[in-house]
Amino acid sequence: MVGIIMGSDSDLPVMKAAAMILEELGVQYEITVISAHRSPQKAMEYATSAAKRGLKVIIAGAGGAAHLPGVLAAFTPLPVIGVPIKTPTLSGVDSLYSIVQMPSGIPVATVSIDGAKNAGILAAQILGAGDPQVRETVVSYKQRLSAEVNKKGELLQEIGYQAYLEQKK
Amino acid sequence: MVGIIMGSDSDLPVMKAAAMILEELGVQYEITVISAHRSPQKAMEYATSAAKRGLKVIIAGAGGAAHLPGVLAAFTPLPVIGVPIKTPTLSGVDSLYSIVQMPSGIPVATVSIDGAKNAGILAAQILGAGDPQVRETVVSYKQRLSAEVNKKGELLQEIGYQAYLEQKK
Amino acid sequence: MVGIIMGSDSDLPVMKAAAMILEELGVQYEITVISAHRSPQKAMEYATSAAKRGLKVIIAGAGGAAHLPGVLAAFTPLPVIGVPIKTPTLSGVDSLYSIVQMPSGIPVATVSIDGAKNAGILAAQILGAGDPQVRETVVSYKQRLSAEVNKKGELLQEIGYQAYLEQKK
Amino acid sequence: MVGIIMGSDSDLPVMKAAAMILEELGVQYEITVISAHRSPQKAMEYATSAAKRGLKVIIAGAGGAAHLPGVLAAFTPLPVIGVPIKTPTLSGVDSLYSIVQMPSGIPVATVSIDGAKNAGILAAQILGAGDPQVRETVVSYKQRLSAEVNKKGELLQEIGYQAYLEQKK
Amino acid sequence: MVGIIMGSDSDLPVMKAAAMILEELGVQYEITVISAHRSPQKAMEYATSAAKRGLKVIIAGAGGAAHLPGVLAAFTPLPVIGVPIKTPTLSGVDSLYSIVQMPSGIPVATVSIDGAKNAGILAAQILGAGDPQVRETVVSYKQRLSAEVNKKGELLQEIGYQAYLEQKK
Amino acid sequence: MVGIIMGSDSDLPVMKAAAMILEELGVQYEITVISAHRSPQKAMEYATSAAKRGLKVIIAGAGGAAHLPGVLAAFTPLPVIGVPIKTPTLSGVDSLYSIVQMPSGIPVATVSIDGAKNAGILAAQILGAGDPQVRETVVSYKQRLSAEVNKKGELLQEIGYQAYLEQKK
Amino acid sequence: MVGIIMGSDSDLPVMKAAAMILEELGVQYEITVISAHRSPQKAMEYATSAAKRGLKVIIAGAGGAAHLPGVLAAFTPLPVIGVPIKTPTLSGVDSLYSIVQMPSGIPVATVSIDGAKNAGILAAQILGAGDPQVRETVVSYKQRLSAEVNKKGELLQEIGYQAYLEQKK
Amino acid sequence: MVGIIMGSDSDLPVMKAAAMILEELGVQYEITVISAHRSPQKAMEYATSAAKRGLKVIIAGAGGAAHLPGVLAAFTPLPVIGVPIKTPTLSGVDSLYSIVQMPSGIPVATVSIDGAKNAGILAAQILGAGDPQVRETVVSYKQRLSAEVNKKGELLQEIGYQAYLEQKK
Repeated sequence: MVGIIMGSDSDLPVMKAAAMILEELGVQYEITVISAHRSPQKAMEYATSAAKRGLKVIIAGAGGAAHLPGVLAAFTPLPVIGVPIKTPTLSGVDSLYSIVQMPSGIPVATVSIDGAKNAGILAAQILGAGDPQVRETVVSYKQRLSAEVNKKGELLQEIGYQAYLEQKK
Repeated sequence: MVGIIMGSDSDLPVMKAAAMILEELGVQYEITVISAHRSPQKAMEYATSAAKRGLKVIIAGAGGAAHLPGVLAAFTPLPVIGVPIKTPTLSGVDSLYSIVQMPSGIPVATVSIDGAKNAGILAAQILGAGDPQVRETVVSYKQRLSAEVNKKGELLQEIGYQAYLEQKK
Repeated sequence: MVGIIMGSDSDLPVMKAAAMILEELGVQYEITVISAHRSPQKAMEYATSAAKRGLKVIIAGAGGAAHLPGVLAAFTPLPVIGVPIKTPTLSGVDSLYSIVQMPSGIPVATVSIDGAKNAGILAAQILGAGDPQVRETVVSYKQRLSAEVNKKGELLQEIGYQAYLEQKK
Repeated sequence: MVGIIMGSDSDLPVMKAAAMILEELGVQYEITVISAHRSPQKAMEYATSAAKRGLKVIIAGAGGAAHLPGVLAAFTPLPVIGVPIKTPTLSGVDSLYSIVQMPSGIPVATVSIDGAKNAGILAAQILGAGDPQVRETVVSYKQRLSAEVNKKGELLQEIGYQAYLEQKK
Repeated sequence: MVGIIMGSDSDLPVMKAAAMILEELGVQYEITVISAHRSPQKAMEYATSAAKRGLKVIIAGAGGAAHLPGVLAAFTPLPVIGVPIKTPTLSGVDSLYSIVQMPSGIPVATVSIDGAKNAGILAAQILGAGDPQVRETVVSYKQRLSAEVNKKGELLQEIGYQAYLEQKK
Repeated sequence: MVGIIMGSDSDLPVMKAAAMILEELGVQYEITVISAHRSPQKAMEYATSAAKRGLKVIIAGAGGAAHLPGVLAAFTPLPVIGVPIKTPTLSGVDSLYSIVQMPSGIPVATVSIDGAKNAGILAAQILGAGDPQVRETVVSYKQRLSAEVNKKGELLQEIGYQAYLEQKK
Repeated sequence: MVGIIMGSDSDLPVMKAAAMILEELGVQYEITVISAHRSPQKAMEYATSAAKRGLKVIIAGAGGAAHLPGVLAAFTPLPVIGVPIKTPTLSGVDSLYSIVQMPSGIPVATVSIDGAKNAGILAAQILGAGDPQVRETVVSYKQRLSAEVNKKGELLQEIGYQAYLEQKK
Repeated sequence: MVGIIMGSDSDLPVMKAAAMILEELGVQYEITVISAHRSPQKAMEYATSAAKRGLKVIIAGAGGAAHLPGVLAAFTPLPVIGVPIKTPTLSGVDSLYSIVQMPSGIPVATVSIDGAKNAGILAAQILGAGDPQVRETVVSYKQRLSAEVNKKGELLQEIGYQAYLEQKK
């Protein structure tokens, strides 16, 4: 079971990608909104009880001074994956630095800015470290990715860039 | 009464400047180390009880993914002043973004990187908003600053840069 | 009484958020345009007379080489809150650095880029440091924020991301 | 079993911290040097065989155009933790961007610049997701961290900054 | 013969400019999609066989953690030209750093962000280093560029900015 | 007489502001397109002959690797004002660094990104250093600026932000 | 006559280079310390009286939130040259942005970070725009620069890098 | 024959690495100092005559507003390799942007900051595109690199990090 949290419901259009890929990979999840700053009590309770409630990994997305992943990590021994959300002013560099530069002792596994899909895949890989069946699902997923890109490459090589771009329209 | 907190005792050589200027301005303070990540329970307790314990302003310094000021601000209605501490890798830009880019609803009054002295002065100015005597102290302090710089300016103008630099050695 | 100043009337669509939240929190304010560069005399007069005229806090927003908050702070013992305005070229990093990196002796309480609403809240918190009634207003405001985000979190958890996003349209 | 790889032996003074914390947490590891650019064949073989050889997590540190973690992640379904190494010119921002900004499909769990110790802790947390005993070790470790910082905080509060700094010398 | 590779077919609208200028300069090329992360095996094979297949230069475009040019360079003695693709979050600074900051021993000839046209011209210049006829083509191309800009300059000087802008509409 | 040069006619929508303000201030100018890279011979001739042809100041705008102002400055003893043009990828930070960071011996007087209007005003100020009449024009211009902003400030103060914004529509 | 101002006497080791080159070029100057923040009244008086006192150009150096050049420019029609001073935390990017990004109407002629020598040369070039004798001095200075670098180039070409580096020791 | 140019003899400690690797690879070169700004006439002559004098590739290193590689590229059809030199204030980001962001039509093949050795290798690869013998030298060089890193990797794996670091002292 994976917990998906975001600091604001305005992050949902980005963060839903984590839920979607977990569905595709057949991994269970729960999803909610908790703000490290506006509902800090709830953040603390969520993280403190996460392991007991059967969560194995937490995915947390936040933007700006993005404290949510780090605050959750402070209260749980579970691995926490942080998704820096793009911001209108600093494009998510603020979110990235706020999430990845955690002090010694309390890591957050950071993915790319707006990288919620990759957060979902990473969660599956983490589950797969202890569960061969989930790992097999990841292997298959990566093979599909590979096949897709190979197919595109062959098509482009064959028909040239003009026909390819025409076809994509 | 002003509370001075820092995320690690390695921040003390910077943060002591806040204590020193408050002493100079005759403002009482307490000082301690609380980590938003390593001792999050304590951070929560400190902030929750701060107003009741008579604190009027909190100064919090932290570096890297610097969540301490924001986490304290989440749990208290008091104004929180954040001091971004310079980091060996990103020079404190990470600390600055983590502190200043707070989401709507929970501000942190951010000063310059390693600006602990200014945090102390700002705390005095905040107290001075409701206390004419403290404000007078701030006025006097600024006059001293002004006099000092004017004196230096006149000396340089008079004796030239060579003699001035010679004298400073 | 809070003074809200901005360097150009093109900043008003951002800066009005400070006025709006102060209205919501029941704090009196005045609002005007003063440029540190185009009307520097006026900036000096405003800051010099601010305390005498009964202002307790000044909020100043400016963009680019954003000198207004610092220039006001130079002429008044009152706490000055700086709002870095987003710029078309450097996204407000220029404004942020110009406001937050004040030299020793003259702090500006900096909030996030375009963070005028937070500037208003911070002004109320500063007034609340010396006025229990204003502080109570801040406490209530934060409780409302918390309730709102909790409600959203519960709804998302209950109905899932698809229904939630559908509902928001 | 955790694999620790670095792109150059000049990264070892940083990367050894991953090995040291894994030793402290009682987690087995192997450690070697493989360059994504100078020994790419070896990188491919290492990643391809990693799961079969019993590795559960890979930690990879690299600097500059830091491709090692991403290249390993391309060839294995295991979770890969990336450690951006500080560089003399860009301070590790180049390493960070090269590691964290992975494209959709192939995540790297990125920690802070030079954050090898946190990489080791994160590896243990990942193992702990499927192994209650390792998770307990992480819980204990975090309690020790918390106790240490609390002790420091109390001491500082008690004896003041001058005595504290004197004592640390 | 020049090989043009890109990490994703979403890069084609940018990368086609390399193909177009090579056509204009009369230089033969092949074009395809290969991902360093999703089809790493193929990337390795392409680079390993490139020289044998008669390629003289490889142009590789990629965005984000842009490893493709570096990974190709690792497997071939041919010069590899890297095109950093603009990204929606970091505007291509991530791509640029991931491509240009290659470690000692394995250079990538980096051009500007989205500079696919210049990559094509550089490929022709590289071929021209050993082939006087191609070099002549480059000389002619540069003369055309020069003539065009001179003509524009004279027109602007003559008719003024208003008429010039009017005419361009 | 002021010379206005730009590296590409695509810079004209920005650079025309220099011409317009010079017209407003009654200062003569000429305007053309010269590329430091595509028509370098012309750039050299323009700069070498500038002083003889009666120019007193040169304004040069360029974007990206913006060498034009520096190259002109290399060939003339006249003051050269550089206008960094905003770029689609790096927002003009590349242009700014390429223009402002000139080596010891050959300065370029740099204005803000896209600051062509200010370049025109600066050119007038430079002429005004040796010509009291031009200086008077600058004084009057600044008084108009001041009057305008004061008028706006008074209006906002009087009618409030809602009415003000309504009126501006 | 050129006025050289700096925001703090700690800027003197950098700013003296402006004085030294003006001496070398035979241009008169005065030099002093005035802080835009600590002695704002003095800054205003200096700028307001500058033209009347016979100054033709002002050079102002400042670091961090570097408002001095902009504040002086606000009060004088004279051209103001800004020198961004390198800072320990942000290396002078803060100073650069605070100086160069001036709003429309009030330009500052910005030189490179710590570029005080170039500020002096630019001041001479500005004087030279209206004074053929000063311009001749600049021409001679540039010829000396050119001769020096040519001599170095010939020596390196002749004796090779090893002997050259040996000789420089 | 490869031409190695640098903008100042202070770049020689970095740029000599290009000469050294070319010696190691058995490629002839010439080396000198030419400044795009202080000796622009010479830069123009060098580039204009380069092809006729038998040069096949030019390597140009420069720092700050680093125009040298671009200016040379403007005057020659030969491929120009740019080496951005690290600067004391902006760490070479200024040099990098000034070199890599060349406008459409005039590419510079940019290597990493201070990457003079890689510039030399790239020059050899470019010569190798038309000369099988030079290409063989590059192949051998890469094999040596690979062997070296493999040997280090095996040693570390065998003796552990403590013994390895001990041995390196």
